[in-house]
Amino acid sequence: MVIAEELAKKQRAISIAQFFEKNKQILGFDSLQKSLIMAVKESVDNSLDACEEAEILPEIEVVLKNLGKDEYYLSVEDNGPGIIRKEIPKIFGQFLYGSKFFSMQQARGQQGIGISAVVLYSQITSGKPITVTSKTKESDVAYQIKMFIDTKENRAAIVSEDVIIVSKEHGLKIEFYMKGKYVKGKQSIIEYLKNSAIVNPYAKIKFTDPDGSVIIFDRVTDKIPVPPKETKPHPMGLEVGDILELAKNTKHKTLTSFLSGEFSKVSNKIAVEICTMTKLDPGMDPSALKLVDAKNILESFKQTKLLPPSSESLSPIGENLIKKGLKNVLGSYKPSFYAIPVSRKPAIYHGNVFIVEAGMVYGGDLPKEEQVSIMRFANKVPLLYQAGACAITKAVSDMDWRKYGFEQKSGAGIPSGPAIVLVHVASTKVPFTSESKEAIAEVPEIIDEIKLALRDLARQIRTFLTKKEIKAKLSEKFFLVQEILPQIALKSANILNKPVPKLEPIITQIMNVVWIDEDIEESKDTVKVTVRVSNFTAEEKKFKLYADLPEGKVLEGSVDSDCKIDSENDSIEWEISIKSLEQKVLKFTLSNVISGTYKESTYYVEGINPVYVVGAEPLPGDWNIEDLKAIIADDNEMEEDENDEL
Amino acid sequence: MVIAEELAKKQRAISIAQFFEKNKQILGFDSLQKSLIMAVKESVDNSLDACEEAEILPEIEVVLKNLGKDEYYLSVEDNGPGIIRKEIPKIFGQFLYGSKFFSMQQARGQQGIGISAVVLYSQITSGKPITVTSKTKESDVAYQIKMFIDTKENRAAIVSEDVIIVSKEHGLKIEFYMKGKYVKGKQSIIEYLKNSAIVNPYAKIKFTDPDGSVIIFDRVTDKIPVPPKETKPHPMGLEVGDILELAKNTKHKTLTSFLSGEFSKVSNKIAVEICTMTKLDPGMDPSALKLVDAKNILESFKQTKLLPPSSESLSPIGENLIKKGLKNVLGSYKPSFYAIPVSRKPAIYHGNVFIVEAGMVYGGDLPKEEQVSIMRFANKVPLLYQAGACAITKAVSDMDWRKYGFEQKSGAGIPSGPAIVLVHVASTKVPFTSESKEAIAEVPEIIDEIKLALRDLARQIRTFLTKKEIKAKLSEKFFLVQEILPQIALKSANILNKPVPKLEPIITQIMNVVWIDEDIEESKDTVKVTVRVSNFTAEEKKFKLYADLPEGKVLEGSVDSDCKIDSENDSIEWEISIKSLEQKVLKFTLSNVISGTYKESTYYVEGINPVYVVGAEPLPGDWNIEDLKAIIADDNEMEEDENDEL
Repeated sequence: MVIAEELAKKQRAISIAQFFEKNKQILGFDSLQKSLIMAVKESVDNSLDACEEAEILPEIEVVLKNLGKDEYYLSVEDNGPGIIRKEIPKIFGQFLYGSKFFSMQQARGQQGIGISAVVLYSQITSGKPITVTSKTKESDVAYQIKMFIDTKENRAAIVSEDVIIVSKEHGLKIEFYMKGKYVKGKQSIIEYLKNSAIVNPYAKIKFTDPDGSVIIFDRVTDKIPVPPKETKPHPMGLEVGDILELAKNTKHKTLTSFLSGEFSKVSNKIAVEICTMTKLDPGMDPSALKLVDAKNILESFKQTKLLPPSSESLSPIGENLIKKGLKNVLGSYKPSFYAIPVSRKPAIYHGNVFIVEAGMVYGGDLPKEEQVSIMRFANKVPLLYQAGACAITKAVSDMDWRKYGFEQKSGAGIPSGPAIVLVHVASTKVPFTSESKEAIAEVPEIIDEIKLALRDLARQIRTFLTKKEIKAKLSEKFFLVQEILPQIALKSANILNKPVPKLEPIITQIMNVVWIDEDIEESKDTVKVTVRVSNFTAEEKKFKLYADLPEGKVLEGSVDSDCKIDSENDSIEWEISIKSLEQKVLKFTLSNVISGTYKESTYYVEGINPVYVVGAEPLPGDWNIEDLKAIIADDNEMEEDENDEL
Repeated sequence: MVIAEELAKKQRAISIAQFFEKNKQILGFDSLQKSLIMAVKESVDNSLDACEEAEILPEIEVVLKNLGKDEYYLSVEDNGPGIIRKEIPKIFGQFLYGSKFFSMQQARGQQGIGISAVVLYSQITSGKPITVTSKTKESDVAYQIKMFIDTKENRAAIVSEDVIIVSKEHGLKIEFYMKGKYVKGKQSIIEYLKNSAIVNPYAKIKFTDPDGSVIIFDRVTDKIPVPPKETKPHPMGLEVGDILELAKNTKHKTLTSFLSGEFSKVSNKIAVEICTMTKLDPGMDPSALKLVDAKNILESFKQTKLLPPSSESLSPIGENLIKKGLKNVLGSYKPSFYAIPVSRKPAIYHGNVFIVEAGMVYGGDLPKEEQVSIMRFANKVPLLYQAGACAITKAVSDMDWRKYGFEQKSGAGIPSGPAIVLVHVASTKVPFTSESKEAIAEVPEIIDEIKLALRDLARQIRTFLTKKEIKAKLSEKFFLVQEILPQIALKSANILNKPVPKLEPIITQIMNVVWIDEDIEESKDTVKVTVRVSNFTAEEKKFKLYADLPEGKVLEGSVDSDCKIDSENDSIEWEISIKSLEQKVLKFTLSNVISGTYKESTYYVEGINPVYVVGAEPLPGDWNIEDLKAIIADDNEMEEDENDEL
């Protein structure tokens, strides 16, 4: 028997760098093609973070050269603030060194691991040092450092250092040698850069591929987004150990200042309230808190009316860019329906605030038989790998999509259908499943939020499909009364040599609806809409018609005179008065619409029984409950099913 | 503009413990139910490793109590060697402390992270210390230590320490308080323990669940597997940086002793050969190796005839336990076909040896419409989470299963069909995607090996299905000639008052085959097989019949006297001489068969044209190529398709 003493002799500690040296795959470096993508991604994400923090419009240049076989040279250069001399060895040569561990604000990098991982992979596979060239505004010269990582010590091993003169005012250039494999397609450097460029439209990224071809992703706006503000942990979702840890390390000297100073949304008043509830001395030293105190504080946080977290610390993608992101992957497919992107309210997991945004397109030439495509983003970084381990995929797979018109075997798994869905999770701390930051962990709070966003999108798709179905059925009738009936009447009359009979009673009997449809004409970013309202009932109808339009689109120009523009609610209102078998033509124009994204308007009617209307919904809250019973009953049923799901 | 100096002020280093404190999800603690499973898993895996290393038959007791709401108490106690006093704080209180970083032998734990992760999660969610009680054989007393992790310093913070007297000779007990949620089902503590018990059949595991119910997974063998031996990295798949790192840290003083001492399968002779090829001085100090030298050494490794890696450092599950593992999840489904488990030869990724084992069952009452179930194991540990990120799932999804009789949309993704597949990857270093060890990274070499194993299994399924089809067609004929024809003949003869006509010529004309089938009778672990050979041809036939039987099954008892047992090839041979329309009955018995797993024998014939035989295959290499052309041509085509896949 091997004895405990002997076993003990084998025990030893290793550095985090040695751990990663033996576990490159945890950092995402598990195949040649993926390793190249990771190297570009970590470098470019860092450049974007640095520029954003320094409020500089990013200009990033990526050059990739094949040196024969599977050896590559990679350089990434930016116009960011640069890094001061003494920080360079630590930032590139030390794992778990960084600026964002405790900052609680949305950033691409969070861990102090990514770029050191590239350095490590580079030195393992090429045996060559990396070169960092940095120029800050404050310094007259640039520093050029060649270095390895000393993995045993988890620190930089500097090979050489030079002072050089460069023309640019500030910026950083990193050069690596590494093994790799350059590929194109769904999981590729170009795909990563393209999707990055979309959600960072103020960045200019130039990429020279190994063939020497240059691809430029130009900026489309000069507006740098408002940098997210730092925040404190929100008490929601914190554990007793977190409270004790914070109390142990705080600089605050009293319990009240600790509570109001270390937590988000805890005012001084609330802090005092909590002291009263827990019967703790407001002036006590927080580091003296005992386990039971911390438990009581947690409990009273729950009973206090805390404001929900604010989203100041976050920087969402926004509706426009979500649509654009979807459009980018569409290729020549022309979806017939763009769901209105959903942006959920800020939510909390374990004290960290997060927001879920999602968009979806449907139909057109998108492949009907294939699985729905899922585009994943976390803190504005596209996620290309480990889809199967991601909370986003999990949320999609857990929903029963069949009731929304999708094919899905036994109501679980990724559904099939002509659709693409995009989900972005923005957080002060995205809970990645590993240091390679490829998938979001299946944190229940996050999955729930994603599901709620998806459900909203899926409902829009269902409404669209239902409308389409109703319209298809009525179109047959429409064709009959508009085209066939008059011809039959005319011919019959001619043959019988009698006057053409009055068709109105027949038409109105067959149709018995007010028919509303529209034509959309697009030129550049302008959309002209022509609305036709036809009264196929036997009586004159008087009602109000509303067009509900996309938020923030300026309504301009040739809107008909007999209407009101309500720019606050982004809608147009018409007073319609229309005789039996009469037709009215209405027009309006939208501007600043992304080409190809505006597919149809939503219309509401008020003051008319909605069962007589095709092409518009009853204005919510308008029609009395009796008439809408059937619709509502049906919808409630669905609603319940859906609530069961969560 | 924020300047570089200001940004630099935010930079700081954190400890690995602080990193994990902020990233519990990386350690697998991302939901309440999963956290409880992780805690049990890490503790039990450690106990199994310790017992195995000390060559002790493991007895492990797990107790889980619900303390109200979502608070739990967990204790895990084993009869292992225990841990000596001074190692306890490091093993439980320090991340990246362990015995297996450099050992290169198969083990469940590898990282020096898992158990500290449980301690960290416990203290965050309960605020309470853990209790470790350890008794080693060498010490008269047991030590009981209560401790936290000081995350800032990544070291233990001891709360109290006691010396106590215990009755057992050696063993370890760990006690935790933590938040959790106890569930049953596919991803549960019971599921993990059950599957662990199957692949570790020499362990006894007792589990007391929160209701107080006791579940015992008793040992089924007293044989401890041969402990895997330590090995060195195999030169295959190493990078130039690895060579340089090894050379820098080696204790060897000359290049030849370095090469033969630090690498697996590099003899002194090969080391000298490599020095000659690279024109390096055999006596040189290896730490003086330059980049170009390391590159040349790598190159000459490739040109040298190195032996493939040995599997001494590995401990596979084995055919028997794979079958048992599959049987365990079968419930009341009775699959109609058990594929013979596949054990691949040792292979290499990045210097680490690994083996892929796989098994599969098919048909019976297994659900036809659902996705094929995949059971994953890594170093004898069942993997319950992150299936979507795992190389095993990837390999299954990448194969086109349609040609093997499965349903699979567009030939990719997890196929649907009545089957369960089990895959085990054993390695001196399993490349997990994260520290939570839930999924194997998609390392190309590993995926290829899994695919080859799966292909072998899938082919067995295809053969089974083809046989079934042929038999079904012939069964109709068989029924006709055996049942219907004699009756018709008899009745016709009676009516016509004539003698019953001779049916032989008609029967042989219709059938024209030698029909071989069997009955299987099972009692306990013994299987009695009765083989019927019926000659439905017009002529006497003489040929050899072989039964190809499972490896290592003792053949005993009532085997017919006119046969030979070839225990080396695990087969029985009969000399058959059978007249037209005669039937022969043969019998044999197998022992040590796991109940329910033996479904049918494989028969081969020699000395007869196989087109006349139903129920047996031609002995490979026996029949001349012309007669088998069709079969082979068809198979080759498939083969090529399959090779394209890899």
